[in-house]
Amino acid sequence: MSPARTDHDARRHDVSEAVWRVLAEHGFAGLTLRAVAAAMGASTGLVTHYFAGKHELIAHALDILEARTRQRPRLEAPAATGLPALRIHLLDILPLTPDGVAINRIWVGSWDVALSDPALFAAQATRYERIRAVLRAAIEDAQRLGELPARADAWRLATTALSFTHGLVVQALFAPDRLPPEHQIELVDDFLAGLAADADQST
Amino acid sequence: MSPARTDHDARRHDVSEAVWRVLAEHGFAGLTLRAVAAAMGASTGLVTHYFAGKHELIAHALDILEARTRQRPRLEAPAATGLPALRIHLLDILPLTPDGVAINRIWVGSWDVALSDPALFAAQATRYERIRAVLRAAIEDAQRLGELPARADAWRLATTALSFTHGLVVQALFAPDRLPPEHQIELVDDFLAGLAADADQST
Repeated sequence: MSPARTDHDARRHDVSEAVWRVLAEHGFAGLTLRAVAAAMGASTGLVTHYFAGKHELIAHALDILEARTRQRPRLEAPAATGLPALRIHLLDILPLTPDGVAINRIWVGSWDVALSDPALFAAQATRYERIRAVLRAAIEDAQRLGELPARADAWRLATTALSFTHGLVVQALFAPDRLPPEHQIELVDDFLAGLAADADQST
Repeated sequence: MSPARTDHDARRHDVSEAVWRVLAEHGFAGLTLRAVAAAMGASTGLVTHYFAGKHELIAHALDILEARTRQRPRLEAPAATGLPALRIHLLDILPLTPDGVAINRIWVGSWDVALSDPALFAAQATRYERIRAVLRAAIEDAQRLGELPARADAWRLATTALSFTHGLVVQALFAPDRLPPEHQIELVDDFLAGLAADADQST
């Protein structure tokens, strides 16, 4: 790799870090070429070398968000199946760590731009469809294991579980004192116990 | 009232309508003095007569949002109490009508700016605390009436119910074909039936 290439990659990394800091502090509404330049202590001209405009900047921001979400530490439980697997999927979404708070704050902020841009909207819709499918598979396993009521529609339960979890993210971001990590976990456990109680009743 | 005052009020109404149209189409990220002027077919200069800058524009946008939310048509059931009252509170939040979709799209979009501005953050946090208190009162009535398990913590149930409903708003905005109004209502009824099933079991 040539030195020029290495410099370019290092600078690109600096730009991405600056985009992330601007997002975490000011959200998408505050994400401008000027703000990114200021966060780097660089000129706006340098930043325009990487992004032609606001649209490219937002696209890059969402790429970073997706990458950081993929790479975030997760609860380790490769052998979990059924209800315990569902629990881990839900807990992995929540803002239980400082990194989880930053990632969620930026995901919630991204809904504003995603709702107004057809390509971003489609990407977000596909992403949620994929998460619902993962939850649905865990729910179907739980049904086979007798942990959840066999009569329930797994797709509807998956939608309910994802709704509950996304809404809890929003409540926790706006009420961090009311909903510290241990309370969020309690609410997830209450929620899952409620689903399981239905199963007990149906047998 | 002088003619000048009437003109001023009429123009102010036009400006508010333009702000709403810009928000519904482009979200908070697209809310600029220039976009509002374009939506009115007026000059940016005219709009700066009403808003000194972006901050005042966002504050006005949130005032309109709050007013339209207060004035929106609601399900009429003044005599409802307990679980039926809780059901109505949850349904009143959801995007079940075109107006409800617009209002929710703008509320969800407002989270990005509210998470980055201390005053807006505090206003939003207070708003959700107030909604949780309303839900909690309905839940406590339902517990007294034996419709919900008496042993459950009403504040936790209220947080869970609001989380579920806000998350369902987000899922419905991103998957309107998957979650038309009748499916959203089914999910609310499933959710409430789940809570009620716990009550049956505890007796």
